Amino acid sequence: MLKFYDCLTAPSPRRVRMLIAEKAIKLQTIQVDLSKGEHLSDAFRAINPHQTVPVLELEDGTRLLDSNSISLYLDEVFPESNLTGTSPQERAVIAMWQRDMDLNGLMAVAECFRNSSKGFRNRALTGAVDYEQIPELAERGRRRVRTFFTDLDCRLADSEYLAGGRFTVADITAFVSVVPSTSNVGAMQWLRARVRWRNREK
Amino acid sequence: MLKFYDCLTAPSPRRVRMLIAEKAIKLQTIQVDLSKGEHLSDAFRAINPHQTVPVLELEDGTRLLDSNSISLYLDEVFPESNLTGTSPQERAVIAMWQRDMDLNGLMAVAECFRNSSKGFRNRALTGAVDYEQIPELAERGRRRVRTFFTDLDCRLADSEYLAGGRFTVADITAFVSVVPSTSNVGAMQWLRARVRWRNREK
Repeated sequence: MLKFYDCLTAPSPRRVRMLIAEKAIKLQTIQVDLSKGEHLSDAFRAINPHQTVPVLELEDGTRLLDSNSISLYLDEVFPESNLTGTSPQERAVIAMWQRDMDLNGLMAVAECFRNSSKGFRNRALTGAVDYEQIPELAERGRRRVRTFFTDLDCRLADSEYLAGGRFTVADITAFVSVVPSTSNVGAMQWLRARVRWRNREK
Repeated sequence: MLKFYDCLTAPSPRRVRMLIAEKAIKLQTIQVDLSKGEHLSDAFRAINPHQTVPVLELEDGTRLLDSNSISLYLDEVFPESNLTGTSPQERAVIAMWQRDMDLNGLMAVAECFRNSSKGFRNRALTGAVDYEQIPELAERGRRRVRTFFTDLDCRLADSEYLAGGRFTVADITAFVSVVPSTSNVGAMQWLRARVRWRNREK
């Protein structure tokens, strides 16, 4: 059986959780409590040397170590309903929006949050190495998040879903970027995005 | 005919150029001179609002705006020889290594370089918005590049190619990360990686 290493409080595994819920996939879920530092233990390092969640362990023992590759795999193996594209062109367009939401959304939010929150002192980047917070980087992250919201509103005024006519992994990534960032952006912007995905939340 | 917006001096379009060379794809190439700021012109903004290269314009006018989605598309449409995987598991494993090389290699090199080089003052991030250089971020980038090289050497001691038994897009991204960073890392490390890819350079 597939093994999914998850953490209920973190945004990246949430991307996988939403995809699993969309497809009603049955798998074994193991919670890794980031607040207790379980991801930094030797036991978890043996599972993922990057010491991040999510991780998906396949039946032959192969491990996928990031939410994007996990989503691609699960979407191919459990094809109903497709979330990553069904033609070369659609797959590429969805991959483009997925990367855009990841880089300009989720990573911008993380840049702001992890460089300013007291709980992330010395943990400004995920992973095995400690990096100190950089206050100027928190400020740059805030500017990037504002730009992201402007661009997102602009795109969603033109198109109900990011990558075209239907819900895809890019919408999941945008949603996950929007939800935890309420303290950093205007509540109205958050609500507008939230309402659009209300019926999608898992 | 496919239109490829390229720049000979930039690492991201080089990833696409190497893939095009591997597959001997015929397309129209348009050079965008980043040193002259051509990517910041209104004309180019109309092509790519992110104001970055590479861009691939498909025959129906759809534009792909990052090297990863372009590589996925070209690899599917020109299948010989495959560089992104031929089964769900192989595609996911290659996507994982591709993301690892992108995030921990190319983006770490860019973090160091763009936050320290005089030529990138106010251009610490690619894209439409100007961001000032942050000296502490250049230093963080240097640390991340050192970690990347250690991890890369470690992986290449176990496996001739990053994602398994053959050359893939992940090796292209690692190569492109290694080559422009000679001034920031030990020349020996660079040479060791360079020799491995000697016959692959395009």
